[in-house]
Amino acid sequence: MPMTTNPLDDDHFHEECGVFGVWGATDAAALTALGLHALQHRGQEAAGIVSLDRGRFHTHKGRGLVGDNFSDAKTMAGLPGRAAVGHNRYATTGETALRNVQPLYADFVFGGFAVAHNGNLTNAVKLKRELVRRGCIFQSTTDSEVFIHLIAISLYDTVIDRLIDAMKQVQGAYSLVALHDGALIGARDPRGVRPLVLGRLGTGEGASWVMASETCALDIVGADFVRDVEPGEIVTIDDRGVTSIKPFAAVPERFCIFEYIYFARPDSVVEGTPVYTTRKQIGAELARESPVEADLVVPVPDSGVPAAMGFSLEAGIPFELGIIRNHYVGRTFIEPTDHIRHLGVKLKHSANRAMLEGKRVILVDDSIVRGTTSRKIVEMVRHAGAVEVHMRISSPPTTHSCFYGIDTPERSQLMAANHDVAEMARIIGVDSLAFISLDGLYRALGKPGRDEKKPAYCDACFTGDYAIPVTDNLENRTAPLSMLPAVAE
Amino acid sequence: MPMTTNPLDDDHFHEECGVFGVWGATDAAALTALGLHALQHRGQEAAGIVSLDRGRFHTHKGRGLVGDNFSDAKTMAGLPGRAAVGHNRYATTGETALRNVQPLYADFVFGGFAVAHNGNLTNAVKLKRELVRRGCIFQSTTDSEVFIHLIAISLYDTVIDRLIDAMKQVQGAYSLVALHDGALIGARDPRGVRPLVLGRLGTGEGASWVMASETCALDIVGADFVRDVEPGEIVTIDDRGVTSIKPFAAVPERFCIFEYIYFARPDSVVEGTPVYTTRKQIGAELARESPVEADLVVPVPDSGVPAAMGFSLEAGIPFELGIIRNHYVGRTFIEPTDHIRHLGVKLKHSANRAMLEGKRVILVDDSIVRGTTSRKIVEMVRHAGAVEVHMRISSPPTTHSCFYGIDTPERSQLMAANHDVAEMARIIGVDSLAFISLDGLYRALGKPGRDEKKPAYCDACFTGDYAIPVTDNLENRTAPLSMLPAVAE
Amino acid sequence: MPMTTNPLDDDHFHEECGVFGVWGATDAAALTALGLHALQHRGQEAAGIVSLDRGRFHTHKGRGLVGDNFSDAKTMAGLPGRAAVGHNRYATTGETALRNVQPLYADFVFGGFAVAHNGNLTNAVKLKRELVRRGCIFQSTTDSEVFIHLIAISLYDTVIDRLIDAMKQVQGAYSLVALHDGALIGARDPRGVRPLVLGRLGTGEGASWVMASETCALDIVGADFVRDVEPGEIVTIDDRGVTSIKPFAAVPERFCIFEYIYFARPDSVVEGTPVYTTRKQIGAELARESPVEADLVVPVPDSGVPAAMGFSLEAGIPFELGIIRNHYVGRTFIEPTDHIRHLGVKLKHSANRAMLEGKRVILVDDSIVRGTTSRKIVEMVRHAGAVEVHMRISSPPTTHSCFYGIDTPERSQLMAANHDVAEMARIIGVDSLAFISLDGLYRALGKPGRDEKKPAYCDACFTGDYAIPVTDNLENRTAPLSMLPAVAE
Amino acid sequence: MPMTTNPLDDDHFHEECGVFGVWGATDAAALTALGLHALQHRGQEAAGIVSLDRGRFHTHKGRGLVGDNFSDAKTMAGLPGRAAVGHNRYATTGETALRNVQPLYADFVFGGFAVAHNGNLTNAVKLKRELVRRGCIFQSTTDSEVFIHLIAISLYDTVIDRLIDAMKQVQGAYSLVALHDGALIGARDPRGVRPLVLGRLGTGEGASWVMASETCALDIVGADFVRDVEPGEIVTIDDRGVTSIKPFAAVPERFCIFEYIYFARPDSVVEGTPVYTTRKQIGAELARESPVEADLVVPVPDSGVPAAMGFSLEAGIPFELGIIRNHYVGRTFIEPTDHIRHLGVKLKHSANRAMLEGKRVILVDDSIVRGTTSRKIVEMVRHAGAVEVHMRISSPPTTHSCFYGIDTPERSQLMAANHDVAEMARIIGVDSLAFISLDGLYRALGKPGRDEKKPAYCDACFTGDYAIPVTDNLENRTAPLSMLPAVAE
Repeated sequence: MPMTTNPLDDDHFHEECGVFGVWGATDAAALTALGLHALQHRGQEAAGIVSLDRGRFHTHKGRGLVGDNFSDAKTMAGLPGRAAVGHNRYATTGETALRNVQPLYADFVFGGFAVAHNGNLTNAVKLKRELVRRGCIFQSTTDSEVFIHLIAISLYDTVIDRLIDAMKQVQGAYSLVALHDGALIGARDPRGVRPLVLGRLGTGEGASWVMASETCALDIVGADFVRDVEPGEIVTIDDRGVTSIKPFAAVPERFCIFEYIYFARPDSVVEGTPVYTTRKQIGAELARESPVEADLVVPVPDSGVPAAMGFSLEAGIPFELGIIRNHYVGRTFIEPTDHIRHLGVKLKHSANRAMLEGKRVILVDDSIVRGTTSRKIVEMVRHAGAVEVHMRISSPPTTHSCFYGIDTPERSQLMAANHDVAEMARIIGVDSLAFISLDGLYRALGKPGRDEKKPAYCDACFTGDYAIPVTDNLENRTAPLSMLPAVAE
Repeated sequence: MPMTTNPLDDDHFHEECGVFGVWGATDAAALTALGLHALQHRGQEAAGIVSLDRGRFHTHKGRGLVGDNFSDAKTMAGLPGRAAVGHNRYATTGETALRNVQPLYADFVFGGFAVAHNGNLTNAVKLKRELVRRGCIFQSTTDSEVFIHLIAISLYDTVIDRLIDAMKQVQGAYSLVALHDGALIGARDPRGVRPLVLGRLGTGEGASWVMASETCALDIVGADFVRDVEPGEIVTIDDRGVTSIKPFAAVPERFCIFEYIYFARPDSVVEGTPVYTTRKQIGAELARESPVEADLVVPVPDSGVPAAMGFSLEAGIPFELGIIRNHYVGRTFIEPTDHIRHLGVKLKHSANRAMLEGKRVILVDDSIVRGTTSRKIVEMVRHAGAVEVHMRISSPPTTHSCFYGIDTPERSQLMAANHDVAEMARIIGVDSLAFISLDGLYRALGKPGRDEKKPAYCDACFTGDYAIPVTDNLENRTAPLSMLPAVAE
Repeated sequence: MPMTTNPLDDDHFHEECGVFGVWGATDAAALTALGLHALQHRGQEAAGIVSLDRGRFHTHKGRGLVGDNFSDAKTMAGLPGRAAVGHNRYATTGETALRNVQPLYADFVFGGFAVAHNGNLTNAVKLKRELVRRGCIFQSTTDSEVFIHLIAISLYDTVIDRLIDAMKQVQGAYSLVALHDGALIGARDPRGVRPLVLGRLGTGEGASWVMASETCALDIVGADFVRDVEPGEIVTIDDRGVTSIKPFAAVPERFCIFEYIYFARPDSVVEGTPVYTTRKQIGAELARESPVEADLVVPVPDSGVPAAMGFSLEAGIPFELGIIRNHYVGRTFIEPTDHIRHLGVKLKHSANRAMLEGKRVILVDDSIVRGTTSRKIVEMVRHAGAVEVHMRISSPPTTHSCFYGIDTPERSQLMAANHDVAEMARIIGVDSLAFISLDGLYRALGKPGRDEKKPAYCDACFTGDYAIPVTDNLENRTAPLSMLPAVAE
Repeated sequence: MPMTTNPLDDDHFHEECGVFGVWGATDAAALTALGLHALQHRGQEAAGIVSLDRGRFHTHKGRGLVGDNFSDAKTMAGLPGRAAVGHNRYATTGETALRNVQPLYADFVFGGFAVAHNGNLTNAVKLKRELVRRGCIFQSTTDSEVFIHLIAISLYDTVIDRLIDAMKQVQGAYSLVALHDGALIGARDPRGVRPLVLGRLGTGEGASWVMASETCALDIVGADFVRDVEPGEIVTIDDRGVTSIKPFAAVPERFCIFEYIYFARPDSVVEGTPVYTTRKQIGAELARESPVEADLVVPVPDSGVPAAMGFSLEAGIPFELGIIRNHYVGRTFIEPTDHIRHLGVKLKHSANRAMLEGKRVILVDDSIVRGTTSRKIVEMVRHAGAVEVHMRISSPPTTHSCFYGIDTPERSQLMAANHDVAEMARIIGVDSLAFISLDGLYRALGKPGRDEKKPAYCDACFTGDYAIPVTDNLENRTAPLSMLPAVAE
């Protein structure tokens, strides 16, 4: 694998992830494995857990699913202790070097420190460049390592002060859980773009504490939801309980609206709002905004299902599973020959031909990114005999890249950044195409519409309104940047 | 792994599988891999393909999914030729010895012969005992090897005559595709218990032929459905086209009714009837037979979804995804510690708490086998706040074991064989429980009800009406039997 | 991997192996693993053990060394019982299919039967052809399976009678150990070409019995040497002790002389004669027959060392380790680029430059087969500064292929079959070359010379005097033959 | 795997290794693989290569032998370029984390830098403690990483000035080869404890340069020996040729005497003296110092062979291979059951019973460390029938631990540190025991004896005369130290 000689000349590395931490519980690592399993939809590339047992840290990391790496008794016996942090990593591209699998760990002068981080720093490359100039040596390409070096060289004494020092220097959208010999720490960026929730296992004296990306991870371990960690808040959990500080100047909150549309699990409750209900409301709103006469409402499974149900109810058009998803498609199934590739075979979806034949079909999906998948699905539905195909999308057109932790391609790859809706409809091959409006989306979330001055959510992917500076990306235009592997394997 | 010294003292080995064969097509092995992928729901334990190229056979087999074993160009390049047969194997228990992975292959005096087989022979143990006495040496524990030895020792000359000779000696429920240097052969048992369909790729001179367990495997390769292979029919495909013989005395047809309820894919059309539509009709019938006042109809995903939709529509009660399925659960995820195991964690399903809280819920599932899963799901739904839980099952009570290729446990393990419905309701913990009636099931399939004299389907698992003798099982009561590993690895 | 459609059209498969069996001992499988480890020089490709515990057989097989496959407690716990047989397999060519790894096992009507076999049947192809015609299905390509089918179809009742029946039909050079529920059996072919020894562990009531290819395998488990199993003898060991039969008409004994020259371990005692001493005597005889003035006697390590020591002592010329062997060369080290390959790098041997520079060197090696290795070694020695290089070989010229279990190439590949000694010297690049004479070799073994009428040893590779018919090889000239994979993996 | 929370509380990590570097050659990585193969005796645990191709670095590392990791064309194609450095690592204890496998690589502000290092720093823990205080984050536990951080934070501009800066701060015994985009660098510690040689491939314009731990690595690639790199010398090779600086104050040279006795390969020439000849001379000196009447001189293979030859010649007692070494013993072969363990089986050595029976035997070995192996070998030789066993050791008693890169245990484990020779003889079970004297060892190396004031060699393991301060070890007595994993995997 190639290494660059110049640490400053490559692309940044986006990450979407799930994080989990627990303090004061028997089988802390096993609870963490369960929590990560519930968060598996946030990252399937790799998983890691660091546990803390009487002053000593233990770790295990692996490529692949949580269940593939944390199921055997021997592995779990190697992760003793009553505190742990864990991390799921999302596949962006290429192979994952094991050294990039979080949680990252370092020995500091104050002792060991492990951190699991979900999100994206927007000035990581700039900071890395400065740190390398100082003599810092990077081993991974993750944003978390920037945090770790900033903490290592901070002149403050306590862990919390060093963490604040680091958080003041970074820009970006992130949630993190960290563990040192003394406390579990959770933190969200000042605008609260990425989620983090606090839960409690048991009650009274014997209660233990959990932090996780989503409430579904509290449910699986039987923890009660306590509250969301707030934007800019640092929560510290130790044997005396929970303490909280908010050391940053308040800025308007901008929670990621895409978590509602697609990323979070439907059974999670995000910032007080159930995701499943929200998706149904978006579907209903969409039916009101862009109705069309048809025989069937068909979701593109699995993420389009709740919106399709909401659309169907509102429109009074039957909801049918006209497309079947094959869940046995692993990462590795590639069309084995050119001949087969040209057949345009759909490995993940198949048409329920008996339902579609001769029908006017409304397809409901959550988003259109590059448009290639949509075009294939429409072609499949038509091939199965549908006489009309209308597409309804439960998000506004994705016109801008995300720099805050969702893996969207460059603008040049985004269909909606390069075509108007009519062109998109033509390319995708549908009889009609409609996206929910931005105001409609906000209405589905219980707002009167989007407040231009104080939009309540981060919706930069639909608006280009980047609330947090995208420093590295701006400099990218004039100078080469890099978070690339310091050491390739 | 243990081997028995007595080839006659162990349990039979049930198998449910998918089979696929193709003759006369470019990239025959790649088409077979796609077909097996579409049939992946019929068996995820192992997969194998044998191809035929200018008189030479080539093979590749592996444990796990089709996509894990047949995706790389090198493997596919090792399977040249214009004809192939393939097989997916279902996991019943323990590890799979690679020698058991089908298609089985043998060198006969007339040349090579590969066979892939879905189903179960009910006198395999008895035949094996006789063959061992003759000096035949078994290498696998699959029924297919009984076929192979019977063919090997047959005194007939042609492959077809030897196959007929073998089929006349075996009892059971099976479909098979076989390949020799000269033809692709497909066959179904005389009662047609297991499915097999014939399809055509392309038209005219260049057309090639496909046989598969279900129509969804025709769809994925773009083949047109021609017809079902008929019960007792042997179809031979060679370069001159398709020929058919029906060498057995006609007996009443008994297609497996459980394929409609659970086993077949919803987008397949089985014996002329779409599976998805049938399942919705069963749900509607169930709503008519056993209505109950409630707030929500909630399917147990994924197989309960169409029946729940049919129930909801008929009953006029909203359909909601109150249970979310986690598709990232592999085989290997086991609760890592006793402590965790006692938490009763649900790894595959999670409650959509926001939907269930305070609601009266109708859960719709396809069957109750041992009842343990149902009990856990009901407990989860109640824990999430449901105030009433009613369960409706889209099959009659499963009171008898299947000896014809569906992996049901012994009667002693079947809840419905040991408890009446009221007791079952109590054990599972529901406020009410109802199964569809046998007549209702037949009605959903378009019949007036079950005709006692000529029931049209094999419904032995609900009735104990075993149309094909279960020879091995009967002898099992008095003498030890075996299809166990001749050589363990 | 390709399979042939015609079971009768491919090359035979030579094997050299080590076998071991034990009856009546605690930890029988562990003792077998140790015995196989001591016999590792006889085969490094794969290893297998079958144990017998209270009527049930257990097996484990693996590619690679004994130590790589039989070291962990879990594997050994899976091989319980007080009786076991084991086998080491020699790499001839290509990858080893696991189904070819011995011991082979089959379920017979009389129960389980495992056999480990060292040697080569010379009519295996002919027998296989007949067995396939009868309807026997072959799974492996080893000669042992011919034995197994002959035993399976034998009309005799007892295991021993069936084994005799089989041994009467096969031709070839072999030793075997076999295990059934009742006895351990050892047998040598009527001419006793391949070795087999009997040993005893402990004394009196608690004594247990061991059979092995060489005495070094008795030494490692602490067993006392009892005697060689005799040519044509079948030894049966059960709980009553040792019984012996010699059911074949006596023929002159022809033990493989090459076991003394190269194949057996130097610390083994073969047919009453220590191998190490014999090799030194051959070296001394060679010094007497073909003296030459020089400064150093240098062995080609490791097998040439004892002969070089004998030569040095007899000639009064200093013995020096002028060539160092690198023992870290695994199978897998291949020159990684063409450029490197052209450098003619020696990976296994390096010249001890300081010793060789300016010296007249006598190189002593055990044999010249193709001559390519010798040429490279001579070139290396000259490159290190030797001024004269004389080569002395401790065997006569290898002019004929072995069909009795030693892996020699076809005659067309044998240097001595195509060149006289003067030409060989020129091609190899030595100043002089001499082989021991056939009579000299017999003298070193304590005979007066070779008795043309009753040669005492099998020396066919030097003489072409094939005492056992090489049936398959003769037919090979007119018709295609095969022991090729019946089923490829 | 456990991690410490305190970076300062664990044992140092000893390493013995082989290093290789090449500049300006086609197939630089392939040459490096060959060189490492020739140096395999210096480390079998892991191997790594970093190549440099037009400003970009490429790396591959793996556990196990060079041949297991660098043989396939694909791996080598991934290591393009005309310059490379490589490293073999010795197994000390436990599993090797891949992040510890050298060469280490880091991105510095001046570009990429790879370093492979053989030896041991004696103040690495102290330096690490200071670096951690500064905020440096360690990823490995190797001494090389101390070098890397010192270079990273150096205030000098050029690579060479930074390296000198680092070398001035470290104490210890080491040789290193390093690669940056511009030059290959080789360096030895000021006392020259560990070896490093310079060679040239080809001549004139097209010549390329090689540096390696031993001359045997020059031989295998066909390079000519140019000279030893001198103690304290830094050699820089770039496209203009070789330049050299010696930036340190001269101190008396102390080359490791144990390289002659055991560690270096017999065909290497170390500091102008052939290793093989030296070992024979030590044997002869030993025969003169400690003669004994006997029938045979028997080496403990493989390292005792040359000394035994020298002893035999000087004493006029026949040299015989009375012990056979089994080269098939991998790391993994452990006695599989307690029962077997108690048999005291020797897996690596077997007695050549026919040679030893009834004989008075002189065993020659290179050293006695813990004494356990010697005791087992003596027992085996007696069990094989030897009537007297005398042991002669070709090194003085090993009374002190090595802190300079040879893996010797603590003094409490060293037999000679705790017993006099008479006691050792009794414990080992020999009739007589003698070690070569220190003066005798120096005489065998061509000196008049050991000069107390200027001993010429590092012989601290025999004398306790530690020429280089063992800082970490001294502090170890009062405070906990550590080079333990910063991040465990």
